[in-house]
Amino acid sequence: MKEDNLKKLLEQVKDGGLTVEEACRELKDLPFKDMGFANVDNHRELRTGFPEVIYCQGKTHEQIRDIMTELVKSGGNIMATRATKGDYDLVKKQLPQAEFFETARIIAVIQGTGIKLKTVAVVTAGTADIPVAEEAAVTAEILGNEVSRIYDVGVAGIHRLLSKIDKIREADVVIVVAGMEGALASVVGGLVDVPVIAVPTSIGYGANLGGVSALLSMLNSCANGVGVVNIDNGFGAAYLASVINKGKSSQKDED
Amino acid sequence: MKEDNLKKLLEQVKDGGLTVEEACRELKDLPFKDMGFANVDNHRELRTGFPEVIYCQGKTHEQIRDIMTELVKSGGNIMATRATKGDYDLVKKQLPQAEFFETARIIAVIQGTGIKLKTVAVVTAGTADIPVAEEAAVTAEILGNEVSRIYDVGVAGIHRLLSKIDKIREADVVIVVAGMEGALASVVGGLVDVPVIAVPTSIGYGANLGGVSALLSMLNSCANGVGVVNIDNGFGAAYLASVINKGKSSQKDED
Amino acid sequence: MKEDNLKKLLEQVKDGGLTVEEACRELKDLPFKDMGFANVDNHRELRTGFPEVIYCQGKTHEQIRDIMTELVKSGGNIMATRATKGDYDLVKKQLPQAEFFETARIIAVIQGTGIKLKTVAVVTAGTADIPVAEEAAVTAEILGNEVSRIYDVGVAGIHRLLSKIDKIREADVVIVVAGMEGALASVVGGLVDVPVIAVPTSIGYGANLGGVSALLSMLNSCANGVGVVNIDNGFGAAYLASVINKGKSSQKDED
Amino acid sequence: MKEDNLKKLLEQVKDGGLTVEEACRELKDLPFKDMGFANVDNHRELRTGFPEVIYCQGKTHEQIRDIMTELVKSGGNIMATRATKGDYDLVKKQLPQAEFFETARIIAVIQGTGIKLKTVAVVTAGTADIPVAEEAAVTAEILGNEVSRIYDVGVAGIHRLLSKIDKIREADVVIVVAGMEGALASVVGGLVDVPVIAVPTSIGYGANLGGVSALLSMLNSCANGVGVVNIDNGFGAAYLASVINKGKSSQKDED
Amino acid sequence: MKEDNLKKLLEQVKDGGLTVEEACRELKDLPFKDMGFANVDNHRELRTGFPEVIYCQGKTHEQIRDIMTELVKSGGNIMATRATKGDYDLVKKQLPQAEFFETARIIAVIQGTGIKLKTVAVVTAGTADIPVAEEAAVTAEILGNEVSRIYDVGVAGIHRLLSKIDKIREADVVIVVAGMEGALASVVGGLVDVPVIAVPTSIGYGANLGGVSALLSMLNSCANGVGVVNIDNGFGAAYLASVINKGKSSQKDED
Amino acid sequence: MKEDNLKKLLEQVKDGGLTVEEACRELKDLPFKDMGFANVDNHRELRTGFPEVIYCQGKTHEQIRDIMTELVKSGGNIMATRATKGDYDLVKKQLPQAEFFETARIIAVIQGTGIKLKTVAVVTAGTADIPVAEEAAVTAEILGNEVSRIYDVGVAGIHRLLSKIDKIREADVVIVVAGMEGALASVVGGLVDVPVIAVPTSIGYGANLGGVSALLSMLNSCANGVGVVNIDNGFGAAYLASVINKGKSSQKDED
Amino acid sequence: MKEDNLKKLLEQVKDGGLTVEEACRELKDLPFKDMGFANVDNHRELRTGFPEVIYCQGKTHEQIRDIMTELVKSGGNIMATRATKGDYDLVKKQLPQAEFFETARIIAVIQGTGIKLKTVAVVTAGTADIPVAEEAAVTAEILGNEVSRIYDVGVAGIHRLLSKIDKIREADVVIVVAGMEGALASVVGGLVDVPVIAVPTSIGYGANLGGVSALLSMLNSCANGVGVVNIDNGFGAAYLASVINKGKSSQKDED
Amino acid sequence: MKEDNLKKLLEQVKDGGLTVEEACRELKDLPFKDMGFANVDNHRELRTGFPEVIYCQGKTHEQIRDIMTELVKSGGNIMATRATKGDYDLVKKQLPQAEFFETARIIAVIQGTGIKLKTVAVVTAGTADIPVAEEAAVTAEILGNEVSRIYDVGVAGIHRLLSKIDKIREADVVIVVAGMEGALASVVGGLVDVPVIAVPTSIGYGANLGGVSALLSMLNSCANGVGVVNIDNGFGAAYLASVINKGKSSQKDED
Repeated sequence: MKEDNLKKLLEQVKDGGLTVEEACRELKDLPFKDMGFANVDNHRELRTGFPEVIYCQGKTHEQIRDIMTELVKSGGNIMATRATKGDYDLVKKQLPQAEFFETARIIAVIQGTGIKLKTVAVVTAGTADIPVAEEAAVTAEILGNEVSRIYDVGVAGIHRLLSKIDKIREADVVIVVAGMEGALASVVGGLVDVPVIAVPTSIGYGANLGGVSALLSMLNSCANGVGVVNIDNGFGAAYLASVINKGKSSQKDED
Repeated sequence: MKEDNLKKLLEQVKDGGLTVEEACRELKDLPFKDMGFANVDNHRELRTGFPEVIYCQGKTHEQIRDIMTELVKSGGNIMATRATKGDYDLVKKQLPQAEFFETARIIAVIQGTGIKLKTVAVVTAGTADIPVAEEAAVTAEILGNEVSRIYDVGVAGIHRLLSKIDKIREADVVIVVAGMEGALASVVGGLVDVPVIAVPTSIGYGANLGGVSALLSMLNSCANGVGVVNIDNGFGAAYLASVINKGKSSQKDED
Repeated sequence: MKEDNLKKLLEQVKDGGLTVEEACRELKDLPFKDMGFANVDNHRELRTGFPEVIYCQGKTHEQIRDIMTELVKSGGNIMATRATKGDYDLVKKQLPQAEFFETARIIAVIQGTGIKLKTVAVVTAGTADIPVAEEAAVTAEILGNEVSRIYDVGVAGIHRLLSKIDKIREADVVIVVAGMEGALASVVGGLVDVPVIAVPTSIGYGANLGGVSALLSMLNSCANGVGVVNIDNGFGAAYLASVINKGKSSQKDED
Repeated sequence: MKEDNLKKLLEQVKDGGLTVEEACRELKDLPFKDMGFANVDNHRELRTGFPEVIYCQGKTHEQIRDIMTELVKSGGNIMATRATKGDYDLVKKQLPQAEFFETARIIAVIQGTGIKLKTVAVVTAGTADIPVAEEAAVTAEILGNEVSRIYDVGVAGIHRLLSKIDKIREADVVIVVAGMEGALASVVGGLVDVPVIAVPTSIGYGANLGGVSALLSMLNSCANGVGVVNIDNGFGAAYLASVINKGKSSQKDED
Repeated sequence: MKEDNLKKLLEQVKDGGLTVEEACRELKDLPFKDMGFANVDNHRELRTGFPEVIYCQGKTHEQIRDIMTELVKSGGNIMATRATKGDYDLVKKQLPQAEFFETARIIAVIQGTGIKLKTVAVVTAGTADIPVAEEAAVTAEILGNEVSRIYDVGVAGIHRLLSKIDKIREADVVIVVAGMEGALASVVGGLVDVPVIAVPTSIGYGANLGGVSALLSMLNSCANGVGVVNIDNGFGAAYLASVINKGKSSQKDED
Repeated sequence: MKEDNLKKLLEQVKDGGLTVEEACRELKDLPFKDMGFANVDNHRELRTGFPEVIYCQGKTHEQIRDIMTELVKSGGNIMATRATKGDYDLVKKQLPQAEFFETARIIAVIQGTGIKLKTVAVVTAGTADIPVAEEAAVTAEILGNEVSRIYDVGVAGIHRLLSKIDKIREADVVIVVAGMEGALASVVGGLVDVPVIAVPTSIGYGANLGGVSALLSMLNSCANGVGVVNIDNGFGAAYLASVINKGKSSQKDED
Repeated sequence: MKEDNLKKLLEQVKDGGLTVEEACRELKDLPFKDMGFANVDNHRELRTGFPEVIYCQGKTHEQIRDIMTELVKSGGNIMATRATKGDYDLVKKQLPQAEFFETARIIAVIQGTGIKLKTVAVVTAGTADIPVAEEAAVTAEILGNEVSRIYDVGVAGIHRLLSKIDKIREADVVIVVAGMEGALASVVGGLVDVPVIAVPTSIGYGANLGGVSALLSMLNSCANGVGVVNIDNGFGAAYLASVINKGKSSQKDED
Repeated sequence: MKEDNLKKLLEQVKDGGLTVEEACRELKDLPFKDMGFANVDNHRELRTGFPEVIYCQGKTHEQIRDIMTELVKSGGNIMATRATKGDYDLVKKQLPQAEFFETARIIAVIQGTGIKLKTVAVVTAGTADIPVAEEAAVTAEILGNEVSRIYDVGVAGIHRLLSKIDKIREADVVIVVAGMEGALASVVGGLVDVPVIAVPTSIGYGANLGGVSALLSMLNSCANGVGVVNIDNGFGAAYLASVINKGKSSQKDED
């Protein structure tokens, strides 16, 4: 419930348009989402241009199509992650404007025309990390960031990384995507002065334990300024990067 | 090696003040830290006001004292984390201006007078998480942030958190410090639109596995915009928050 | 061996209808289930209306059909969990009255007409948790509870939960079904004053470790009044809820 | 904020005793705990006779003394778990009526005179499990339950358990406390028709992994009607048992 | 090299039939298996009637057929474990006398006519444990034991076990096969005075961790006289049981 | 209740000395331990000469003394494992005949004079495994076995083991005690034709994980005829060895 | 950038052929790989005859074909590991000289004619370890080593190993490939005086945990001179063996 | 038994000095260590100058002193690892020439005067890794290598490493000692063309899991030519490095 509405209700009580009992019931019954903090939550998403996001895994083609169709009415960018070709085929029938980013496994309906103000560098250790990196890169683009991709610069050939370091340093946030031993996050973390978001991937074999090896490496990084997200969670990294790049909403309001 | 120095050297070659062989040797022998990227690294720290940080664990009282004495000459803020009272007693003899933040286990020499531009909220689930939270809070303050502390607002009594949510929302970055099941990170992550840095703590017993339980919770957070640091790593969280709040150096230069 | 039977046997000894040796042998050879405590066990199930339950995994279609056909003679409700469509197809040929709850993966033959006295609320964090939740909900209904379903109220949008809290509070037992970080159990546990049974699900990816992440969260819950069952064990949660709602049998007898 | 208070406020608005702005501010500024759901939370505790509980680990003697002194004013039963003799010595100076249950590691101030209506059986596998069992037993007593203790009836000598089973069956809830392989929970679960709360203990050595072995056993119990709490969490088990025995508050209101 | 052969060789040296150099070379070049301890090893197998065993997993149909064809020449019992129907189909073409124990996944050629002197009881907790139990039972039979099968007597209904205990007690060795929480090993271990070999199975779901839960239970058994083999290793348990039942070879020789 | 007693009771019913109601009550109320199987359990221990065993860890000096004093009355061998010097000092005051095996951490009162019929070989990989080995060796001796100790024959110098293999082969059961990688169990298992009981020890460092490394090795042993007990559980291995060596009780009865 | 080039550039500056600004830009913009250490890196591979290696997993047939086609121009040996028949079929169309080592899963184009100076022995515990062993053996051959294969000499029959030990001792480096309990590495490590590289394999079942059991064994080996590579990493072991056999490049240069 | 002895024995048989039966018994009873391969083992150590090594942990001061006193008679270098000051104090009384390397925790008696032919570089990520590094460095020196120490060049400041890379490249083997995320092994592995032995250390906190984090990183290293030893096992790394540097003994013999 917005302050205006609250005032109006109280005016009605004062004016007798509402009995005390009626007002009491209304105030008591108001769902919490209407009491201020939840609405803010919704408005924030509209205001910041961050799209609603559908996590497709475990949902049927039909559910995904229906949710997208509903969300598209909001007029903002809509995206669905971990989508399959099958998901897309059905969505496209309903929403011909939907795009499919195959490597990133993302279906998107781009309706906003965000001015890209800040940059996210997405860096991978190997080529096998690219699907996770693309999930991050495409998400970051949809969420309004300029994205630069620097792929296959793992630490086993440190010169590959060093030759690209200037490009990486141009970013406002760096997302490091690495499997195996995940050492890239530490090395990049020591070379840049912006936030590094580390995404461990399940790439590797043997004792990589489905990505736990890279995850532990990144959590134990000897470099400062590194935050970690879940294994293979390219979307999560890009979302966090976008929140960082966006800055606090209230600041924007002051502009 | 700064560009100016490089130019000067080349001028000398041109002028004959340096033979080709002498210049060649000098260029070849230059430590990499002088070849541009490393100097930037050091200068960045001075420029951004980020202090050198000493991790005390595994170092002797004498080593800590000596490193601090050396670093203090730089004129910036100096801090040592995971410090004991014994560490401090020896440091203080040499550096009487050193302060000891006992709960945070930090020794600091504050020499800069940073204008605090942005805010970090440090939020804890319980009172037992406070030492880790204080490490984060004191670090964030030394690194130039305004800090607001919101302690003991764990999710078992969600109203405690909701009553403080406005204060938390005023921050530019939120650090959530929680042990046991670490659920606070998810709940806060769903209530704010700024980056959330989650710090799992080793607080708990039984199947908390020394903090792994909270760590896994935070990595699997159903809320977006959450990055995780290592168990009990209050310093790391504050450092990352500071990097986020500081923004990209080059941008500042443009201002 | 029921007390009546025992009396009859002893009467026969007294009357000479049975020699001491014959009676001795009969008493000695009685299987333990006939010596009182096992019969009680069986009678309890008939008396309390709790159906025999078949766990289908690892059983053939034929075995399931045969066991159900046998059990249906008891006249009570019969259910089979973790059943497939294939299991059902064969069962239905023999028992046309059998129903299939597809999402819950339960085949049931409802023969009792239990008066539903108490309520179980089944609450999920996300939509992907619904199959496990339906296993719990359908089980609870078959076992004689009124069930209210409150789905997709995960903590990342705490207002969703808070807007449903009154409905949840109407239940006598609350089952919380959640994957990922499983934080919902703690938050619900702090908001209700009835027993909370937490069911971790294997929903999630990366470091959720097949549900272990949610399991650890729930075991380490900072809220009191929470008991945990195995990962994805919706049936087990509903059974425990039913035992709680039923109360001690001897009490019932006193009514 | 209770409904009466809300009515009074609205009456004041109607009567002009409060301007719309004043009422608006008051409603908006009310901490959430005053908006209905939090007050209920507090009142529930007073009403149900459940004491406030202090978890001593990680708190100083002084903190424990001060919190107990504050809570004792409520007039209810007050208890502090995981307390040491040192904690108690300081508390006793301030609160001479405080009792110390040494094996249970609980300090309590008993101020209520609860009528004990229902029973909790606390069953242990071995003698080494007794401290955890006593934490459960004493907690259950303070929370208003009749408690029967059946100790050292582990499954390696199943007759010990069977000879006590009638006593166990008299309880409304059974708490099973067991370390090592934790098999007792399954066996008891198969012998009673009331809820079983299983508490794994860290008793054992070698591959018991600090209680994880018993924890896994209990979660995988082949018996139905078993809920599990954290390792060594006797308090948590007793609290859950008490919530079960108390039944839903609203029901009580109807009595 | 049997003692006889050694004697013969030395006789030849004595007689001049072999030069010292020739004998030296022969003795030096003898593979270690011919130097006494390895031959004993092979002879032991023939003497004790223990068949050569082929572990099929990872071998092709052809390899299995060829090895069996080779081994069958020894005249003893031959068995292949973890065999598929496909393995059997090819073997049968070559060795029409081969039998296939489908549930046990064993192909066998029975050529010996062992007098069954001692008994192995194979006990399972549930019906899903039967494939592993059959691997044990069939192996034990082929290795010359009388086998009694007692299936589905898990501890959740302890009376089922107690009603069969006399039959179990008749065995010389008891193999307990159980998944889930594996409690059956402890209960049986407390009821018999012969060796108990515990086989954890991977039966279960959720936190059973592929059988690790039952494995830990069995290792931490509170009953004495229990030895554990690997998860699902029915063959290994039966082999160990057979070694126990056979007794030391040298003893037999003394008879 | 022994058969004699049962007959007597039934005679009394026949004779009218007991009414049907009285006999009924007595039969129904008989504790299960009196119904045959539990008494057998106790008698078995007396008959087989196996001592009662006290596990000292978690018991006070006084408790240990009192239990030993009570058990000593049985006239059999009495032993207490994991005992400290402090435990012994108090026991000795009461029972001057008690002996203390310091390395084995066992207090024993030897009252029987068992004829040692069979042999247990206790083999260790290193010298650091000796305390666990001594626990096994002393236990085996007290339980009536001849024991041969073969220490420090780890596989890194396989010739050490091979030079002792004849002595090992003389035993009826072999206990292999090894930490680190625990390979000794596999090698010994391949060299003997009697049961091998493997005891992993917590000896080692780094990734030995408190003995889990050796435990896994032994469970995965490529040799047949190997059973495993818990980490550092020398007592358990010796108990199992003794049960094997003793053979089935009923057999003895036939002798 | 080689020293010659640097000199030339500086000469140009001296001569005026390059302005200071031009030289400055060129020096500053030089990729690190041109500054000496990266070029050396590339040259080393050509010089030492070590082929470029493609890890096929996660790459498409087309990518593999294209990379191989590119690399083959270098004139050295080219190999692709973890290749499938499908990968090979496409590669062969483009590069008819390509060979496929099916068991080793390696595609190779042999263009060099390396003189094989040193020997690598590849030893396996069982036949199921052979695919990993072949990956090692074929890699070692391509990288210029003489390879001797000693397969199926696991420690359960130690005489098999001892009969081959002389052949193993002829090698300059020994690669031990073993699954299950991985004991072979320790035994071999104790028998040879050359470096042993241990490769744990995922062969086994139950508690072998996908090779972790063998991995832990090998890391905890009681033998000295053993280094470990990742589970199933036959390629990595052979590469390390080759680096050892090759010796330091600079030494060779001095020869 | 050396070939000479074997010949002599056979001559005696030929000459009748030994009956066939006597020779047979002698050949059969010869301990395996006398049959050639074991003696070689001992001789190898004397010949290669590798000292006997005592692992002190779990041994008493007296045991260490006595073993050293015994070994010192061999005339070679003697060393004891994981030694304490207390160990040394007692050893020094008996062997005044013994030296104590405090940081390395090594007691040594240097009796040989090995010509240092090859070099081992010991590289650490941080200062806290130095004790493990010193164990490696001192061991390598005692075993006859030239050692260069490059400490505190962790990857968070990659320029520190790059500035030292020439020195590292001069070594014949590189030992990388690193805790936390252990990334240094991968980076160094990509920069050198000699064998890299990676030693994970237990340095770190939180999710480093006692060194398992660094261990997994190193096993999953994306660089080739890296072998791993156990956590904190500086000695093991140095021993392996020495075996590599020594080369095959037989080769040396040919020189």
